[in-house]
Formats: sequence, C-alpha cells, structure tokens
Amino acid sequence: MSVRELVVLGSSSAVPTRHRNHNGYLLRWDGQGVLFDPGEGTQRQMIMAGLAANDITWMCLTHFHGDHCLGVPGLVQRIARDGVAHPVHAVFPASGARYWERLRHATPHRESDVIVETPVAGERATLATGDPFTLTARLLSHPVEAYGYRLEEPDGLTMLPARLAELGVRGPLVRGLQEDGRVTTPDGRAVTLEECSVRRPGQKVAFVMDTRLCDGVYELAEGVDLLVIESTFLDEEAALAADYGHLTAGQAGEVAKRAGVGRLVLTHISERYRPSDEPRFVEQAARVFDGEITLVHDLDRIPLPPRRAPH
Amino acid sequence: MSVRELVVLGSSSAVPTRHRNHNGYLLRWDGQGVLFDPGEGTQRQMIMAGLAANDITWMCLTHFHGDHCLGVPGLVQRIARDGVAHPVHAVFPASGARYWERLRHATPHRESDVIVETPVAGERATLATGDPFTLTARLLSHPVEAYGYRLEEPDGLTMLPARLAELGVRGPLVRGLQEDGRVTTPDGRAVTLEECSVRRPGQKVAFVMDTRLCDGVYELAEGVDLLVIESTFLDEEAALAADYGHLTAGQAGEVAKRAGVGRLVLTHISERYRPSDEPRFVEQAARVFDGEITLVHDLDRIPLPPRRAPH
Repeated sequence: MSVRELVVLGSSSAVPTRHRNHNGYLLRWDGQGVLFDPGEGTQRQMIMAGLAANDITWMCLTHFHGDHCLGVPGLVQRIARDGVAHPVHAVFPASGARYWERLRHATPHRESDVIVETPVAGERATLATGDPFTLTARLLSHPVEAYGYRLEEPDGLTMLPARLAELGVRGPLVRGLQEDGRVTTPDGRAVTLEECSVRRPGQKVAFVMDTRLCDGVYELAEGVDLLVIESTFLDEEAALAADYGHLTAGQAGEVAKRAGVGRLVLTHISERYRPSDEPRFVEQAARVFDGEITLVHDLDRIPLPPRRAPH
Repeated sequence: MSVRELVVLGSSSAVPTRHRNHNGYLLRWDGQGVLFDPGEGTQRQMIMAGLAANDITWMCLTHFHGDHCLGVPGLVQRIARDGVAHPVHAVFPASGARYWERLRHATPHRESDVIVETPVAGERATLATGDPFTLTARLLSHPVEAYGYRLEEPDGLTMLPARLAELGVRGPLVRGLQEDGRVTTPDGRAVTLEECSVRRPGQKVAFVMDTRLCDGVYELAEGVDLLVIESTFLDEEAALAADYGHLTAGQAGEVAKRAGVGRLVLTHISERYRPSDEPRFVEQAARVFDGEITLVHDLDRIPLPPRRAPH
C-alpha cells in the first residue's frame, strides 16, 4: 500500500457551488489516511472518489467554521456503521471542544469506540512522531482559533554501492550494516553505516487553511514537498482577505517561494469566482513562485512529488 | 408564485450512493417552501436545483436519524448568512430537542433570529391552519420517535355560472356574493353562495418517512393528491423492513390503495439496490395500487396532480 497522494474531496470556501463541494482532503500515506477538514458532504464525496470510512486513520480539523467540519457527524456515524476497527485519531483545536462534542454526538447512533480525541492547544503541538510520519500542528491567525498541520517522514539513508565495495562490505555484511549500523569486515576494519551512505530526505507535506499571513504559515510550509494552502481570493481582494483572515493567490505564491516548497496546491476558492476566473489564481501565484502550481478541482488526485535526491 | 411541486434533493436511506444524496425534499407551495428532512448535503443539492435558503419557510424533520437531519447545521448557517428575513418554522420531535440544539448550534456562526422552533409531542399536532395550508403532524412507528406530516389546502367553492343566471345574480352582485356569502337580487330574492356553487376540494400532500405500517401512516395518507412515502426495501426484504421499522414497495402500494391517494411517490431507497433494481419498486407497488407511481431520482421535480374536480 505504498500510495502517497492527496485526494481532493471538496474545495470551496464558506459556500459550496455546483462545481465545488465544501472542503475535504484525504492524504493517503502508505496505509494511513489523514482526512483534513471534512466539510458537509465529505461522506458522499468519498464514495465518489472510491474511498471508504475504513481508509481514515486521522481526522484533522483546522478550525470549527462549518465549511471545515460539518462533515464530521456523517463520518463519525459511518465509522461506527461500517465497523472500522482501527483507531481514528481526531485532532481539533481544544478551544472548540464543545463544538466537537456537538458534531460527534449530533444525532442518536450506535457510537464507535475507535475514535481517539486529541485536542490541541498552545502555539505548537506534536501529535505523532517517527514512523510513518511526524505530525505537528501550528497555530495560525483567523477570527476563530485555527491550526495548520505538517507531516514529515523521517529522513532515511541510502547506501552507496561503490563505497561499500571500496570498504569491503559484501554479501550478508550489507544487511548487518543496515540493521546494526556498523559491521566489522573480514580484514578487521570497523565500518559504520554513515560512512557508506547518504541522507535520503523524508517527504513532507503541509496543510495550511484559513489564515492570514503569519509566522505559522511559513513555519508549516518550510521546505515541504507539497503545500496545500487556502487561496480564497485573487490579489485584487487583498483587503477583503485581510479582513476575513484569508490568503490571496499571490500570497500563497509568496509563501511557496520563501519556504522553498516543491509543489504548490491552491484550494478553498471563494464562491464569487466563476470557472473562467480560475486560471488567474495560478497566474498570480506564478508571478512569485516558479515551481509547479495546481488549482485543485473536486476529485483531483495529486501524487506527492518524487522524493528529493539523496545528498 | 403559484407553483406547487415537490423538488427531490436527495433520496437515499441511511447511506448515500453515487446516484442518491441523503434525503431532502422541498415542497414548493405558492410562496411557501416546506423543506422535509434535510440530510447531509441538502445545502448543495438546493444549489443544484436552483433553489436558495430564501425559498424555505418551513423545515420539518420526521426524526433525528442522521440521514434525515444532518443538513440542518448547513442550512441554519445559510439562512443566517443569506439574511433570510421571513420566519422559518422549524418543526421536529420534542423528544429530540437536545439533538436539534446540537444541530442548530453545531459550530460558531452569526445566528439568525428568524428560525421559529416548533417541537411536536403527543400523537397528533396541528402546526398551521387555514391559508395557505393546514399542516399537521402524526406520530409514526420507528425505533426513534418519528412523525409524518400532512398539508391540506382549505376546500374552496366554485361558482356555477348557469345557476347564478338562473337565480338572477349578475354583474357586481357576483362579487358581492363571493365576498359576503349572500346577496339580495334586484327582484328581492336572498341568494347564498352555497346554493350557486360546488365544493372545490383543496389539494393535499402527505410526507411519510421512516416507519413501519401503523394507523398513523393511513391517517396521514387518507385521500391525499400526492403521497411521498419511504420505500426502503423491496418486498423480499419484508422481514428486514419490519426489524428496522421501514416499509417495502408493496406496503407503500397498499397504503396508496387503501387511502385512495392520487399519485404515489416512492423514495428513501436502500443503498443495497442498484439502479437496475429500481423498476421492481414500481412493479411491486403497482401490483396493489393502480394509480400513478413514481420512484424518484435526485433533482426530480414532481408537480402536484391537478386539483380534483369540484363536486
């Protein structure tokens, strides 16, 4: 199950349109499925995308505005109905715990005990570490308390065959070196893994939703392979964006540039824009950022960029 | 705005499918809009149907299972956001008031004060009387407390031109007769409206959702022009239907026949059935009921049958 992709379930902002459902994003990461911000209708969008409740292992809410969480009741009920047996970690701002309670227990149903509630508070929180990823939350700046999320795969090591041969590490010794980090060659030389390998950077993804520009945005985005970021408005509406605590396409491009991201994914598009306006989002981001830029559509599947070269 | 039609926003039962959204039905009745059982995604289905929050004047929930009410939070928030200025009467089983509270206040938003909460309790309740319709609720039989609804237009009178001429009611006297119910003709005769008119039956609609067969079903359906009724299962699954408190297609036909309804509308179809199974719903109902039968699809618009002939 070595699939790593972002499945876009919805991409509107506060008001859905004929073309865009309310938010919803499933990041498939090998056997894990991190569902970000399930808005109303996410349950059915998952069916449209060929996904099931069983594919969810994490549910991360950035904040409690309706377009980011009104899909929770339906999903919680599906998780129970479908008998999901693995833990589903539900992460949300602790300040909105009373809203979480209402969503989780919105209507009578046979409740599941697999949901593990993990409220986050403070400026930063680490939710998981190590394998298969480290998941962190970072406070952002929006009219209600909002967090962005970042996943990081641990860096690995790639062995260099030429170097192994040069040092006399052959056959079963290679495996020993990999497992123990050091071996002794037949001619008595102690060899460490470090001296015959290079660092293989782990993949990194950031999910930045509903915020004005702030330090947290840059911290989350720093060096990620894939940055999924709200771009509610075009640059012409920068004043509105600031008032409502949102980003423009150009600001998203600016973040991608300064943070050195691999691929920039724009979403959370205001209903004021027509499909014919959409190319302008990419144009405005591309004035600043010269990497790959995608304005998403519902049911898009966006693969993680290939792992960066070892160094 | 003399439109009377049922707009089908969704028609699945507990689990939506690619083809059927969760429940949702807007009965457009002249200037009124009665929204029955808004399931998750109803907000967006309304957009697909070209309807707005402003078209809703009543919101009637049969019961608090998720597929009949998880659209409430989104709609309540849209009613506020769109500045709906007229009252929206929200009707729901009083026994589920705590669920109503969670749905209405699911997440932080600028609340609207146009929503008029009308919990119903007991076996029967009258929610509105007279013009443009009398709206009643009747207790049904389901694992959680559930009500069906019935709308009745008051009967009217249609004047008979031949009879008016015969009795010497002419010119402005006709209007006088209509307004006052009686006039005196130039030759001194007292004429009443009744003696020169026939009764024009008002239109009637029943909405019967999530119930096993019980007296309430027949009481709601009695003599209606349009019966919208759940038909979750085919007759082969009659045992399942009884266990879960649902109806089969044949039972829906039986109700339509015994109650003498005009048009039978089947909905709330279990996700176990494929589109290729659908003709069998109509076949099974038609074995019993020989009137018009429709198995709905999402976004269908079903006009009320023409008013029955005066008599």
